[in-house]
Amino acid sequence: MIRVVVFGCGVMGRKIARALLDKKSFKIAGAVDINPEIVGKDVGTLVDAPGLGVAVQTDAALKTLDADAVVLTTTSHLPDVAAQIGRCVEVGFDVVSTCEQLSYPWKRHPGVAAELDKLAKSRGVTVVGTGINPGFLMDTLPLILSAPCLRVDAVRVRRLQDSARRRIPFQTKIGTNLAPDEWRRKISDGSITGHVGLLESIYAIAAGLGWKLDEANESAPEPILAERETPSGLGSVRAGRAIGLRSTAVGRKGGRSVIELEFVAHAGLKDERDEISIEGDPPIRQVIAGGVPGDAGTVAVTVNTIPRAIEAPPGLKTMMDLAIPRWTP
Amino acid sequence: MIRVVVFGCGVMGRKIARALLDKKSFKIAGAVDINPEIVGKDVGTLVDAPGLGVAVQTDAALKTLDADAVVLTTTSHLPDVAAQIGRCVEVGFDVVSTCEQLSYPWKRHPGVAAELDKLAKSRGVTVVGTGINPGFLMDTLPLILSAPCLRVDAVRVRRLQDSARRRIPFQTKIGTNLAPDEWRRKISDGSITGHVGLLESIYAIAAGLGWKLDEANESAPEPILAERETPSGLGSVRAGRAIGLRSTAVGRKGGRSVIELEFVAHAGLKDERDEISIEGDPPIRQVIAGGVPGDAGTVAVTVNTIPRAIEAPPGLKTMMDLAIPRWTP
Repeated sequence: MIRVVVFGCGVMGRKIARALLDKKSFKIAGAVDINPEIVGKDVGTLVDAPGLGVAVQTDAALKTLDADAVVLTTTSHLPDVAAQIGRCVEVGFDVVSTCEQLSYPWKRHPGVAAELDKLAKSRGVTVVGTGINPGFLMDTLPLILSAPCLRVDAVRVRRLQDSARRRIPFQTKIGTNLAPDEWRRKISDGSITGHVGLLESIYAIAAGLGWKLDEANESAPEPILAERETPSGLGSVRAGRAIGLRSTAVGRKGGRSVIELEFVAHAGLKDERDEISIEGDPPIRQVIAGGVPGDAGTVAVTVNTIPRAIEAPPGLKTMMDLAIPRWTP
Repeated sequence: MIRVVVFGCGVMGRKIARALLDKKSFKIAGAVDINPEIVGKDVGTLVDAPGLGVAVQTDAALKTLDADAVVLTTTSHLPDVAAQIGRCVEVGFDVVSTCEQLSYPWKRHPGVAAELDKLAKSRGVTVVGTGINPGFLMDTLPLILSAPCLRVDAVRVRRLQDSARRRIPFQTKIGTNLAPDEWRRKISDGSITGHVGLLESIYAIAAGLGWKLDEANESAPEPILAERETPSGLGSVRAGRAIGLRSTAVGRKGGRSVIELEFVAHAGLKDERDEISIEGDPPIRQVIAGGVPGDAGTVAVTVNTIPRAIEAPPGLKTMMDLAIPRWTP
């Protein structure tokens, strides 16, 4: 039985808490949040498990908790997350976080990464960032699919999702039902963010293959506009307004584009799928028909990574350093 | 630069030696075989690299070699392989082997496995069995694809290959161009073997998911007979004669079949592919269109596993204990 502290009791934290309760390998040993409206409440009441008897506390309570690991789902802002992780590590907890930039922090935030690595090693614990994407579909899985290749020339990944089937905050994040001007303004000012983590996935693939890229670039997301009235979780979208977005990122080496990632999410997308193509000898053409749903996938990959993080040697790790990810009972 | 001894210089050993020469991470530090016709020869002359200057020697020379790891491709017979591995381990070499039964030896040969594990730990080295199948497509990859699942009810894997595109020994092994009676007699007396390793893949999947199976059974292979004159590497096969085989294996738990593996290889098979289906929440439907070619795949997975074995803690490991498999430069 692995004792887990749920750090962050928002939408994702609650889904993770629910998944932990549904599995026989885990026990919720504590819950932490900053929201005064839920501090003091039994976390069970937030996840359809009344009477669980685990109070939501502030992070000052971390050092009083008897646990093995922390699942941290507070924010995507790495410096904030790093401070929170630091507090968990000081107490001696392994940490698994959904913070996108933590999935491969060595390129964008090498200083923060080096400090976390040093701290984790000094306390004998493991820290890892994961999720469905970044963390699995667009980095770990393409790397794994390169194992049967004698030669790899290029890696291409496409994720195509019908956003109308995702949770509302995701539909908001990709600018659903905004007019094109408004969409572009909100992308520019950061009030909608699009997908976060394409560059982290490129950095992870390059590191895993031992490739030194000349450059890695993410293009500004482009809106996808409704061609006809389209239902969404944010109302029916009139033709000409945004139903979602397309994001791409490319890694180049020796004048060639060797890593290409494409992320498309919009309401009403047909033929959802996750595609990985490896150009090489032999070439690999993989499709996951129907795609992997983002929310369930993130919860599952995160929870299923906890035992792998606990087994791993101490330090700040990425998914490629851990034993193969897999379902945990 | 990882210094590798090629132990076994048959068809597979030579392909592996060639792959090692083509990569910048490896150097061939020695070659071992029992065949008096090649002992004393430069292994380079066997792999289109004349002047390599690495003589094929008997395994008595192992202790004189300066190397990091051994790739062992001698035989599928585990007790013989275990003795050879023992000699490598005594010298302090990590060992990666294509022996099918070594890919998950804990169920069929627990005594041999425990002894190898103890020996490897005492010498501080890692031993692992791998290959495309068993080792990757029908065990490691399905396990990895369970990572985005909250719940796993069943795992189904199908490998469909056009054997006419494979090397001749493979086409012989599946009884190509035999009359049905002859095919059945040769399968019964073991002079043709079909695919080896379906049960190892079932054991590996069950272990990885923490499932205790009630039973795991492999059915006797069935011949696939030509419906019309069919070209093969063993001549044109008349209608009614064997063009290949179908093998299946099933793992059961709680009265349900929870792991199903199907291996089909015959001359002229259309739509080659590798399919993995996970029944669960969410379900996963993966297809590798065109499939992964067996020979190149085995060479690649084996060579690409060497760095992972070297990094791993000591002992007898399986692929699920190592860091994620991936291409090595």
